[in-house]
Amino acid sequence: MVYEINETHDPNLKSWVESANDPNTDFPIQNLPFCVFEAPDLAIKRSIGIRIGDKVLDLVATNAAGLLSDSYPEHVLENNVLLNVYLKYADEDFRSELRQRLSELLSSDRMAEADELEAFLHNDKEVQFYSPFNIADYTDFYCSIFHATNVGSMFRPDNPLMPNYKYVPIGYHGRASSIVISGTDIRRPHGQNRSDAEAPPVFIPAKNLDYEMELGFFVGKGNELGQSIPIGEAEEHIFGVCLVNDWSARDIQAWEYQPLGPFLAKNFATTISPYVVTMESLAPFRTP
Amino acid sequence: MVYEINETHDPNLKSWVESANDPNTDFPIQNLPFCVFEAPDLAIKRSIGIRIGDKVLDLVATNAAGLLSDSYPEHVLENNVLLNVYLKYADEDFRSELRQRLSELLSSDRMAEADELEAFLHNDKEVQFYSPFNIADYTDFYCSIFHATNVGSMFRPDNPLMPNYKYVPIGYHGRASSIVISGTDIRRPHGQNRSDAEAPPVFIPAKNLDYEMELGFFVGKGNELGQSIPIGEAEEHIFGVCLVNDWSARDIQAWEYQPLGPFLAKNFATTISPYVVTMESLAPFRTP
Repeated sequence: MVYEINETHDPNLKSWVESANDPNTDFPIQNLPFCVFEAPDLAIKRSIGIRIGDKVLDLVATNAAGLLSDSYPEHVLENNVLLNVYLKYADEDFRSELRQRLSELLSSDRMAEADELEAFLHNDKEVQFYSPFNIADYTDFYCSIFHATNVGSMFRPDNPLMPNYKYVPIGYHGRASSIVISGTDIRRPHGQNRSDAEAPPVFIPAKNLDYEMELGFFVGKGNELGQSIPIGEAEEHIFGVCLVNDWSARDIQAWEYQPLGPFLAKNFATTISPYVVTMESLAPFRTP
Repeated sequence: MVYEINETHDPNLKSWVESANDPNTDFPIQNLPFCVFEAPDLAIKRSIGIRIGDKVLDLVATNAAGLLSDSYPEHVLENNVLLNVYLKYADEDFRSELRQRLSELLSSDRMAEADELEAFLHNDKEVQFYSPFNIADYTDFYCSIFHATNVGSMFRPDNPLMPNYKYVPIGYHGRASSIVISGTDIRRPHGQNRSDAEAPPVFIPAKNLDYEMELGFFVGKGNELGQSIPIGEAEEHIFGVCLVNDWSARDIQAWEYQPLGPFLAKNFATTISPYVVTMESLAPFRTP
């Protein structure tokens, strides 16, 4: 399944939310990423939002006001404080229909709805963002040959790329419980450092704290244990993408990583952006 | 915090549940492990159980009937279909008090309660067991030098133990979503095999499917991100133990595991026993 380019991607589309028309914004009306947020005056504790310009539209409130479609499955946008239920029950048709409707409601020629929607818009500076999903498992793939060669040369200057690299996807499971939202303070971890190979290791704060800028994929429609997903159906399982900072304590990693891979060097924190950019919104950027 | 030996551990204690007095049972009245189960005739879909002999006592129903204490925190044993809430809110005093009460109710000299409790006992053959917890993260430690030397010699005959082994706990995160209960059928995974080092790898069903018998610890009272748990307080964070089969596809592992550790060779399934044996029940077996 491949999303097609449609009128929601029209580069000339403008919004009545003025900040969305700023040529420098990351959140024009063509994007419309999901997030999970809390505002001081919300009826429910957390809600699902759509970011547009410098505002967050409360999707649960918009639905409750009857501004979306009656055809959406029950519960998907009701009292739903995480995107897990949406991910599970909202299929591609539902998602496309919702995107279409949001694009209409927020476009400049629909000023009629603007007054009603204003009540459900929150300034980005006044809300608190949370992880968009309850993340059950998190896998980190080693999938840029430039990055793999660069990092590999830190630990194995003579042998940065292993013979398996060009055949099998190299990855490992990270710690899902230490994934935090962008802006969360990270404490430099303590760990064993053995930069002096002649002496026993010492337990000290990590000296070489590094970052890795990565692209995160939210996957989760699910499959039965033991059932493979054919490569042609893989994209149906991707809800959207976010940015990731895979914090890495290189001195801890160098000493601990053999033979079972990185562990304490990586699991003290992983930062993700609060926004889930949908695969459909990225349709115009697909290359052959 | 170390649990002390008390009257619940008395080796002479017998139960009115006859099968619990069989010298060959794993479930005498001194054990009383937790589980999560479903019986055809239960009012709620799943419930927390206590295994005794060949029976499972429905703890939620026992509590609802007023047979336990009034002093238990609300919700901990009400409509609770997983042990996560119990783990979070039931402190050591609560747990000890519950164990004490269950030991009393099930002992031979309390036949008075037997009639009432019979209604909440289910035959082990007639119930379906589930994972006792919603497991958020799962870490596999490489913590027997005999096992590490044995497995290490499969992959590195000349160098089975790495220099870090005697200094730092070697571990990796497993896939929490593929943890299943004992008895679940496991499908042999496909993966890349490169037993012929002269030819490219081939994608075939795993040839060398292996098992590793391990002890699992349920940990989860939790701590704030960036806050360490002092070693002296570690035991307060352990709720109990289970048996684990860490299924391992050795041919896939040998080819994929460098440099990031085992991944597809391990994450197709991990089997756990349905019973959580509490740390308190193990008090008599502590050695200096």
